[in-house]
Amino acid sequence: MKIAFIGLGNMGSCMARNLLRAKHDVTVWNRTPAKAEELRADNAKVAKSVTEAVREAEITVTMLADDHAVAAAVLGPGGIAENLPPSGTHVSMSTISVELAMRLAVEHGRRGQQYISAPVFGRPEAAAAAKLFIVVAGDSTAIEQAKPVFDAIGQGTFVIGPKPEMANVVKLTGNFLISSVIESLGEAIALARKYEIDPHRYVDFLTNAMFAAPVYKTYGGIIADERYQPAGFKMRLGLKDVRLILAAAEAVDAPMPIASLIRDNLLTAVGRGMEALDWSATAKLAAENAGLK
Amino acid sequence: MKIAFIGLGNMGSCMARNLLRAKHDVTVWNRTPAKAEELRADNAKVAKSVTEAVREAEITVTMLADDHAVAAAVLGPGGIAENLPPSGTHVSMSTISVELAMRLAVEHGRRGQQYISAPVFGRPEAAAAAKLFIVVAGDSTAIEQAKPVFDAIGQGTFVIGPKPEMANVVKLTGNFLISSVIESLGEAIALARKYEIDPHRYVDFLTNAMFAAPVYKTYGGIIADERYQPAGFKMRLGLKDVRLILAAAEAVDAPMPIASLIRDNLLTAVGRGMEALDWSATAKLAAENAGLK
Amino acid sequence: MKIAFIGLGNMGSCMARNLLRAKHDVTVWNRTPAKAEELRADNAKVAKSVTEAVREAEITVTMLADDHAVAAAVLGPGGIAENLPPSGTHVSMSTISVELAMRLAVEHGRRGQQYISAPVFGRPEAAAAAKLFIVVAGDSTAIEQAKPVFDAIGQGTFVIGPKPEMANVVKLTGNFLISSVIESLGEAIALARKYEIDPHRYVDFLTNAMFAAPVYKTYGGIIADERYQPAGFKMRLGLKDVRLILAAAEAVDAPMPIASLIRDNLLTAVGRGMEALDWSATAKLAAENAGLK
Amino acid sequence: MKIAFIGLGNMGSCMARNLLRAKHDVTVWNRTPAKAEELRADNAKVAKSVTEAVREAEITVTMLADDHAVAAAVLGPGGIAENLPPSGTHVSMSTISVELAMRLAVEHGRRGQQYISAPVFGRPEAAAAAKLFIVVAGDSTAIEQAKPVFDAIGQGTFVIGPKPEMANVVKLTGNFLISSVIESLGEAIALARKYEIDPHRYVDFLTNAMFAAPVYKTYGGIIADERYQPAGFKMRLGLKDVRLILAAAEAVDAPMPIASLIRDNLLTAVGRGMEALDWSATAKLAAENAGLK
Repeated sequence: MKIAFIGLGNMGSCMARNLLRAKHDVTVWNRTPAKAEELRADNAKVAKSVTEAVREAEITVTMLADDHAVAAAVLGPGGIAENLPPSGTHVSMSTISVELAMRLAVEHGRRGQQYISAPVFGRPEAAAAAKLFIVVAGDSTAIEQAKPVFDAIGQGTFVIGPKPEMANVVKLTGNFLISSVIESLGEAIALARKYEIDPHRYVDFLTNAMFAAPVYKTYGGIIADERYQPAGFKMRLGLKDVRLILAAAEAVDAPMPIASLIRDNLLTAVGRGMEALDWSATAKLAAENAGLK
Repeated sequence: MKIAFIGLGNMGSCMARNLLRAKHDVTVWNRTPAKAEELRADNAKVAKSVTEAVREAEITVTMLADDHAVAAAVLGPGGIAENLPPSGTHVSMSTISVELAMRLAVEHGRRGQQYISAPVFGRPEAAAAAKLFIVVAGDSTAIEQAKPVFDAIGQGTFVIGPKPEMANVVKLTGNFLISSVIESLGEAIALARKYEIDPHRYVDFLTNAMFAAPVYKTYGGIIADERYQPAGFKMRLGLKDVRLILAAAEAVDAPMPIASLIRDNLLTAVGRGMEALDWSATAKLAAENAGLK
Repeated sequence: MKIAFIGLGNMGSCMARNLLRAKHDVTVWNRTPAKAEELRADNAKVAKSVTEAVREAEITVTMLADDHAVAAAVLGPGGIAENLPPSGTHVSMSTISVELAMRLAVEHGRRGQQYISAPVFGRPEAAAAAKLFIVVAGDSTAIEQAKPVFDAIGQGTFVIGPKPEMANVVKLTGNFLISSVIESLGEAIALARKYEIDPHRYVDFLTNAMFAAPVYKTYGGIIADERYQPAGFKMRLGLKDVRLILAAAEAVDAPMPIASLIRDNLLTAVGRGMEALDWSATAKLAAENAGLK
Repeated sequence: MKIAFIGLGNMGSCMARNLLRAKHDVTVWNRTPAKAEELRADNAKVAKSVTEAVREAEITVTMLADDHAVAAAVLGPGGIAENLPPSGTHVSMSTISVELAMRLAVEHGRRGQQYISAPVFGRPEAAAAAKLFIVVAGDSTAIEQAKPVFDAIGQGTFVIGPKPEMANVVKLTGNFLISSVIESLGEAIALARKYEIDPHRYVDFLTNAMFAAPVYKTYGGIIADERYQPAGFKMRLGLKDVRLILAAAEAVDAPMPIASLIRDNLLTAVGRGMEALDWSATAKLAAENAGLK
């Protein structure tokens, strides 16, 4: 399939490479061109502009840093909205706000273009191994058309509903659920340590009993080890996501007290000098607040 | 082995029966004798008093409702502390406070008796199927001696450390972690519903991706179904446990903001008439607070 | 002095009238002209556009509903920034975001115009009686120049510092402090009622002892009376203000846990159908959460 | 009047001295006798035991540190309950739990004795100057009888209702309201400082406008000065009081989210080494959490 791939960060590069491995005809574009050039070895075509990349694509995938970058690439001059062919489909895989997803759906819609949201769960290793989980929402025909893209980069694709922003809600609430695992583990492990329980032993028990899920293993391990750097996911990114979830909730008058608490803890962690650490360092904050070294 | 089993509620009856099936010599006692009589068919001896049950037991297991019941059975007149033989071991499997566990260790210790804490995770079905998870702490020789008890009733025994109260900390923090899963799922699912996402579909995705753990399946299912009765675990019991965790934390100067928030939500749920529902009905509270019917 | 007055809502009309009473030469403008016409009787000149109102004014006062209205009036086509004479001063008295205040300072500055923030505390009655409290920040010469305006409408003018946005921070934190009085009174009075204490008696004691301040009298009275309508200040306005304070705090990485809690309570109150009530109806929420009728 | 005064700490000594100044016949008792001996110069009689002090008193006042001390003095062997004459009245002025107040009412009641709760608001300076505020609850005849006591030590006596524990609820919620002023001022002043607003100027404005109450002046001043020692009221005492209020609320199923938050902040302050500071040092915590030095 003829695919344009916009955005070659840690995640995007891996995803584009997997599309190339699946023999798709992929044209890539990245703001800093070096990242694009690297993919020539994998048979990527390299576009000089978004316009050029998108103009003849059946599917255009965006995988960019944030709302700002996506809005610029899609709605800016020379952007995707202006250049996507009428039959083309924009598949937005970035973690963006619910509000922007709604706006993109409207903007593409009034140009007769298709828009679907398809954010991904997984870290760069999972992206490299084509093991992402993909949550998709939007028009079912457009989703069907984009299926080969999802097959090439993920281990599972989950269609959540007909409105594109639904997938963004799932992505954001998913990250919220992860952050609440971190917070509650942080409090629990701090208390266990106050009672001189070995934190590794503690996590070992949990993750072999009721909490035998990847998220508890990953973050339980990090917290027990107090291994908050290198940051797999930085504080600031955590803050951005919790801001997006709170905004999505406020837009529909939904209070989210645990999300509010997490937001305040992330801000406190930044205020206490942990900005460069992994977002799970709010567990370090919990330990310090409990008087642990 | 010669075992006294004190407390035959929903959990205790199943556990005692599994000890009998494993061919142990079990004498049971229960405040309301009918529950004890039922076990005669399984070859239990029925004692008329705690004193009689305990006097010749190598191991005495208590599985009672709360601190009050345990303190009465152990420290009251004619109680376990007075009657347990010097070489005997008291295995406390109830969900009790950290403070009481510490006190029991002292009281048994000054009488030359052994005391270990061994609270269990699992619902009555798991107890019946000998599939409990058991967390044990205390003197290692005493634990070794009690091993046949654990083997007969659980699917896994996890030794957490040398001080008995450590096991109670693990039990209470475990329940706290479960309650925080409920709270965060409650907020997330309420938000998903506000965006017209089907809650079953939503839970289905989560529990097939990063959250593939029993606790998410169980409670995700309950919340998606809005099936809060019959109550598997009542509000008041949830409140009791959160009170115990907050007390254990306050005793060592550890703040637990998520536990505080859960406590306030459970109280609110009671105030709003949900006392008879399952403790996961705080998710119903989250939904109503978000303006859902 | 030659004054343009933009925005004639409940507050603005009273303020403009007081300027006229103080014999200033006032040209008014309002989006719905009827409000402007009413002031002709007080010797106001009525402008047909912002441009016309502002063009020859020494001081231009804005008193509009929100960021959106202020941004449109100042930065939109035909707006204040385009038309204010170089020596003119824009005095922004609306409750706006810190971010917008900073932006207005920049925009006026690069046109050689003066900008000061001067938000007010007080309800319409206070505005009518020229009893507002005014918090001012910005260039001291510009503030000096605007002093006759403040003298005509307030009972006290308080200069807080050299950067205009400082005054907006004071206004927003002031509203936050008021909302936290409401919240804590709400919890306290609910508890008092649970113990069958008469709420009026309770408030009477407080406000005659350590809490003898207007804010406790006003809101203590409303809560004791359960008199949440007519709304003096609506839920949605409370939500707007708490959003602005949280945004101002987030911009400088300051956590505000009490503000977060208030935000969640306001959203919950909306979710529970109290949208039309006074923002102090979060105290009604506290009462209901405690199981009171 | 014949008065027994039990408990001569910082507050009690001043209060007893004011009773002596008012020409009452006062017998004092204190656990460490030196404090009692000091009052001989003011014409106090010094008893060797609680029994001796109480036996002939019309009114017995207790002003002790906590529940434990009051329960021992009243219900212990040789205590007030055993020795108060049938027509005697016990006036409990300490800050004790609602639960203990209820228990004292029952214990005195079944001995035909009178019990009223009359906790005080004010610091030692206010006690010395006979400027305390006194909240009283209980049987109105008993209150009438005790009036000369209140007149001698306070600037105002406020009868809140017929059940003694009502006065304790008012005392505890009063302290809660004070602590919530501290918390909200802490957040607001931290934010003001982040925007480079002078904190003294800020507090000056507030306390000359809507917040012109003693509690804002006292604590606003402390926070602006960052003057957290010497501690007027220590962290641990703050923690004790918030624990009592949360217990009183939990006993009637009332959630108090702001009280919960304050409790967690006080615990955090202790965990971060502020145990010796004034309880208002949670404002220092707020500042540090916002990244201020």
